[in-house]
Amino acid sequence: MTVLATTLLRPAGLARALGLDVVIASETGQHTGSFKFRAAYNLASSVPNAHVITASSGNFGQALAYACKLLGKRCTVVMPTTSAKVKIAAVRGHGATVELVDTTVVPRAVRVAELAAQDPAAYVASAYDDPYVIAGNASLGRELAAEGFDVVVAPVGGGGLTAGIIVGLREAGASTSVVGAEPLLANDAARSLAAGYVVANEQEPGTMADGARTVSLGKHNWEVLKTGLAGIVEVPEEAIARGVRLLREHTGLRVEPTGALAIAALLVDPDRFAGARVCAVASGGNVDDEVYDALVR
Amino acid sequence: MTVLATTLLRPAGLARALGLDVVIASETGQHTGSFKFRAAYNLASSVPNAHVITASSGNFGQALAYACKLLGKRCTVVMPTTSAKVKIAAVRGHGATVELVDTTVVPRAVRVAELAAQDPAAYVASAYDDPYVIAGNASLGRELAAEGFDVVVAPVGGGGLTAGIIVGLREAGASTSVVGAEPLLANDAARSLAAGYVVANEQEPGTMADGARTVSLGKHNWEVLKTGLAGIVEVPEEAIARGVRLLREHTGLRVEPTGALAIAALLVDPDRFAGARVCAVASGGNVDDEVYDALVR
Repeated sequence: MTVLATTLLRPAGLARALGLDVVIASETGQHTGSFKFRAAYNLASSVPNAHVITASSGNFGQALAYACKLLGKRCTVVMPTTSAKVKIAAVRGHGATVELVDTTVVPRAVRVAELAAQDPAAYVASAYDDPYVIAGNASLGRELAAEGFDVVVAPVGGGGLTAGIIVGLREAGASTSVVGAEPLLANDAARSLAAGYVVANEQEPGTMADGARTVSLGKHNWEVLKTGLAGIVEVPEEAIARGVRLLREHTGLRVEPTGALAIAALLVDPDRFAGARVCAVASGGNVDDEVYDALVR
Repeated sequence: MTVLATTLLRPAGLARALGLDVVIASETGQHTGSFKFRAAYNLASSVPNAHVITASSGNFGQALAYACKLLGKRCTVVMPTTSAKVKIAAVRGHGATVELVDTTVVPRAVRVAELAAQDPAAYVASAYDDPYVIAGNASLGRELAAEGFDVVVAPVGGGGLTAGIIVGLREAGASTSVVGAEPLLANDAARSLAAGYVVANEQEPGTMADGARTVSLGKHNWEVLKTGLAGIVEVPEEAIARGVRLLREHTGLRVEPTGALAIAALLVDPDRFAGARVCAVASGGNVDDEVYDALVR
């Protein structure tokens, strides 16, 4: 069992503060500090390729590098030259090759394509739009299925986490509904659900929830979400910050802004969850000290 | 308030598992992920010097670098060339200068002395043996004083944390006793208390609790601990690992091995704490994925 089971927390003070029956499913203690390890490990262990290439300056790159290390595979992560040095070091620390690209000159996808052309035997992994990503995240849905929640709330960026949770819950026979929590500043998923097709943001959104700065939902995820998602709560930035503070105060968890989206959704639309047994997924804890400081001081 | 208040957690499952009335004081959510920020910020804000030099490959270096950044001071951290690259990047990420030293050729203290000679106006900070360190950590003791604990259990390495907690509790008028939790493999503090003078380890101890690999107690700390400490529990490595797992299971906290020493002490000597209102300090959460994986898988 290389993927760690999620940690379920029942902080009474948080339930009182929200006026809701809420359980936290924390992925901050997952390997590499976020749920992304579930997808990365499933992908790296499922593909036969000895070399995996991805573009990610965030949790997926770190998770994939670590997964490949555990599996004895080569890993290349394309990151912008502007990436935090500590993130570059973390990826390199897991033995992956980091390809830095000046994204004002060369788009990341172009650099990935060049690298893939140099090694046609490599597998090019998307951080959020790959069936292996959904299948990996489904492990969280299966874990939550046994708990009898009425609704699971989880952050939406590219949609891989919510799609995975839906698939996992259904595989396990649970009827638990799944609600997405999306930054209002990056509400392409909410607009996509309303439109009935994938709507993209016009540019990378400026939300503090950097895990949700994707331009659009992944197409594999969309196939699950378009009918599987019970709805989306659009979360203003201030509510994300309050969510970070509430989780710190009541659980001691240090979450990244994206990791507070689900709790923030409960703050924004409590009526929607009144009387329900709610599970809020705290998706990760990788946050720069400077960012965290500004939120909790 | 730049130093964050500790987070007090009352996990019912953990209390049941231990058979004790236990509260966790978690410093994993402190700035830079450990209690060391308390000492570092107090030191950097108290000394008039515009440049602070220290030798640390661990939490203190990171904390001091961040404190100096917040205060607009220069910071130089001497680290062994063998330090994890992610730790070097974290210190550099806070704007500090990292001086790498091959400790097989030049001892760290020698490199620190050379740097201090080059800038006589700089303050040379010890990670654990400095009155400012004790005074900084005393803030945790003052926070805990109000809670009415019978006993606070905290890890002992150089002794700065326990000395600070004792000073803070006494300042606030609390009679709470303080027990140290020390790795059996690095039991110089236990031997010092027994001998009545500071006994040093013959070499850097091989415990997994890297925050407790100090060769001996700091002399400032010893002055507090020799009469202020109610005792020390010597903790085998396996109990540290169990402590890490218990904290993950019952609180979702991802602690470094040193951060699990206090809970491990409760496992090792439960009779000592029976019937008491116990506070166990989880001192920090900075742990390599590889190390954590091996402990919790």
